Amino acid sequence: MVHDQMVNSFMRAEIITIGDELLIGQVVDTNSAWMAQRLNEEGIELYQITSVHDDREHIIAALDEAFGRADIVLTTGGLGPTKDDITKQVMCDYFGTHLVEDTRVREHICDLYKERPDVLNRLTATQWLVPASAEILENRVGSAPLMVFQKDGKILASMPGVPYEMKIAMDEQILPYIRNYELQITNYESGHIFHKTLQVNGIPESSLAIVLEDYENRKPAYIHLAYLPKDGIIRLRLSSYGEASGAEMDEWFGHLKDLVKDYLIAETDEPLEVIAGSLLKKRGATIATAESCTGGKLASLLNKHSGSSAFFWGSVISYDNSVKEHLLGVPGDMIKAHGVVSEEVVVRMANAVRELIGTDYAIATSGVAGPTGGTKDKPVGTVWIAWATPDGTTAECFHLGKLREQVTDRACTKALVRLIQLLS
Amino acid sequence: MVHDQMVNSFMRAEIITIGDELLIGQVVDTNSAWMAQRLNEEGIELYQITSVHDDREHIIAALDEAFGRADIVLTTGGLGPTKDDITKQVMCDYFGTHLVEDTRVREHICDLYKERPDVLNRLTATQWLVPASAEILENRVGSAPLMVFQKDGKILASMPGVPYEMKIAMDEQILPYIRNYELQITNYESGHIFHKTLQVNGIPESSLAIVLEDYENRKPAYIHLAYLPKDGIIRLRLSSYGEASGAEMDEWFGHLKDLVKDYLIAETDEPLEVIAGSLLKKRGATIATAESCTGGKLASLLNKHSGSSAFFWGSVISYDNSVKEHLLGVPGDMIKAHGVVSEEVVVRMANAVRELIGTDYAIATSGVAGPTGGTKDKPVGTVWIAWATPDGTTAECFHLGKLREQVTDRACTKALVRLIQLLS
Repeated sequence: MVHDQMVNSFMRAEIITIGDELLIGQVVDTNSAWMAQRLNEEGIELYQITSVHDDREHIIAALDEAFGRADIVLTTGGLGPTKDDITKQVMCDYFGTHLVEDTRVREHICDLYKERPDVLNRLTATQWLVPASAEILENRVGSAPLMVFQKDGKILASMPGVPYEMKIAMDEQILPYIRNYELQITNYESGHIFHKTLQVNGIPESSLAIVLEDYENRKPAYIHLAYLPKDGIIRLRLSSYGEASGAEMDEWFGHLKDLVKDYLIAETDEPLEVIAGSLLKKRGATIATAESCTGGKLASLLNKHSGSSAFFWGSVISYDNSVKEHLLGVPGDMIKAHGVVSEEVVVRMANAVRELIGTDYAIATSGVAGPTGGTKDKPVGTVWIAWATPDGTTAECFHLGKLREQVTDRACTKALVRLIQLLS
Repeated sequence: MVHDQMVNSFMRAEIITIGDELLIGQVVDTNSAWMAQRLNEEGIELYQITSVHDDREHIIAALDEAFGRADIVLTTGGLGPTKDDITKQVMCDYFGTHLVEDTRVREHICDLYKERPDVLNRLTATQWLVPASAEILENRVGSAPLMVFQKDGKILASMPGVPYEMKIAMDEQILPYIRNYELQITNYESGHIFHKTLQVNGIPESSLAIVLEDYENRKPAYIHLAYLPKDGIIRLRLSSYGEASGAEMDEWFGHLKDLVKDYLIAETDEPLEVIAGSLLKKRGATIATAESCTGGKLASLLNKHSGSSAFFWGSVISYDNSVKEHLLGVPGDMIKAHGVVSEEVVVRMANAVRELIGTDYAIATSGVAGPTGGTKDKPVGTVWIAWATPDGTTAECFHLGKLREQVTDRACTKALVRLIQLLS
């Protein structure tokens, strides 16, 4: 079909996200990254993501362009019951079909809302009108229909834009449909897309690239190396689209690990809090936090994922100094003498919360998140972090930039990096 | 220039985000939404967002398409010093120019890294090679050049993909440049894009649309109404691209407010935590949280924005029951009798943390975030929330879905909605 320029051809997909809210910045498109991960795991190359307005001509132009480049077009958004949502009607126009009532969809929606009769009104009833030529898959958790169209041997799947509805639709309906479609046509090989990522800390991106210069020149051109710096961590990703074998990827990934071993934090792309959590669980150890500038963000990361209750016990967020004094026992004199952003205070906070909550480990943060509160000695971005462990407590001072969110995000990253090192 | 189909013509912009990491889902594109907000505030219509690979032909095709539709093309990404970043060279090819050394950029970079000589290596030195025909604007916080090209009276600005570098670049350099460019050409009127949003709670989207049916039929077609449901809140946005006056928008926004007054939470698009924070500040009141299932997320929201230390004092995150017992004084017998997800426990938590931290208000959460831990009586998604105030404490039980992140996000929304109602 398309793209015969590649030796090993893949199914190629594109995503079109539909909604004015994306183009005025009222909503961040988190769906596309999630869908991109799933597609890559399936061995499907995602070629492009396009966000368009709730506008008939715009949607149709984007569909035409995407079908010109890809075999599979996935759209999200515009399927609600209100007037601003026009995707279903536009799909009818594009595929030359019309809306018909679908009894199965009607029964599903009536069942879904059987305890909420207020929702079963005449607008909701428009949700069981579906394009006659589309195959309708079940949206288990919502009223918007999942529609699949075929066109010249290519497929289009239209999903709701609500993230959790989209995720369930993808996993339970759309991806199985695509797998089945792929089986029916024989001119695609799938499963040969590889991405392998490791994470390093403590070296600037350009210096790392010099360390890896010889490696980059030696490795086959069809194995790509990408640098993804974020919050002081650099993720190094090796990718191959069809030409490398699994063994070859493993070999080059092994070389890469050797070269960066002094800076290596993780051999996977897992979030740092997941890696730290796994290490804590492996040791049967528990952790608490005492947070000033990070204000609960570190705790929130540590308990973000399922199973965190095994190692995360709790926190004291001491945003106001009175909480540092009364709940964590930091002496007022100490705060006066050294300032609240100091080694003395943060060490005391870590030790206090470790004892108060009764955990094996504890992390404390105190810093100037900004934009106000900076001084000449302690400008915005100054953050002290302490790590209390069964073997003693250490602390370090960081300078983490000028923007409030950046400072607190980076402080969490620094806190987790050292925790991982302490546990490894 | 383009789009003479509109009576009032606007500058029209497109965003192209460049990076393989976007298309394999390793990074969520948060830049585009932020840039979209800024462009709309400037009265510039953002027509499309396109994410493409670090691939020469792909970038060039996207540039061609975007220039075919828009007057201003903004790109982010691909400007690092490593081999995988090719945007600068592709821009040279596209605009028929070549790289030259820029003394001013060199001096800036040397100054930027004067205390980090390890960064000043020969790869970093490639950052002061810039396209000869581009206008180079100062990237105050990084080494990647900000490049502006002009082509047939249209402009392209290329920025780094690192969010905080991009934000500073936009605010300090790119937007002023665009304003100036707009002044020089006379066939655009700007400043007539209006978006006005209010937020409602406690009514299903389809029922709301029925309430507003007559309104939707009466309002002029050039004033658009959009429904944006999220976490139980629905944002209602009125938009106009040029044809409505400010007074006309105010009038229709006023009608809208009247129609939804029973459900109205806010008359702006501000995040709920900002609205709650303003109300607390207005009263000179303070708040604390005691969090089990939300694990610090609510605290983190309350102190996310600058100035929060005026009202947010601190929290106890009692993820483990021992913390509920020892730090918050919830009797073990109460937990045994009613379960940890219960009205009794959550009321005790709220009262305890209010007293412990000494604030006027306190919010407590306890629930089953999932995916495990659900029972027949208290399935995943069951969350009790309590609000302690100077006038007493109330609590409510919610059922917030099946997905961990959705449950905790919605719990924070519910907590803030009631807080806003209590303070209004």
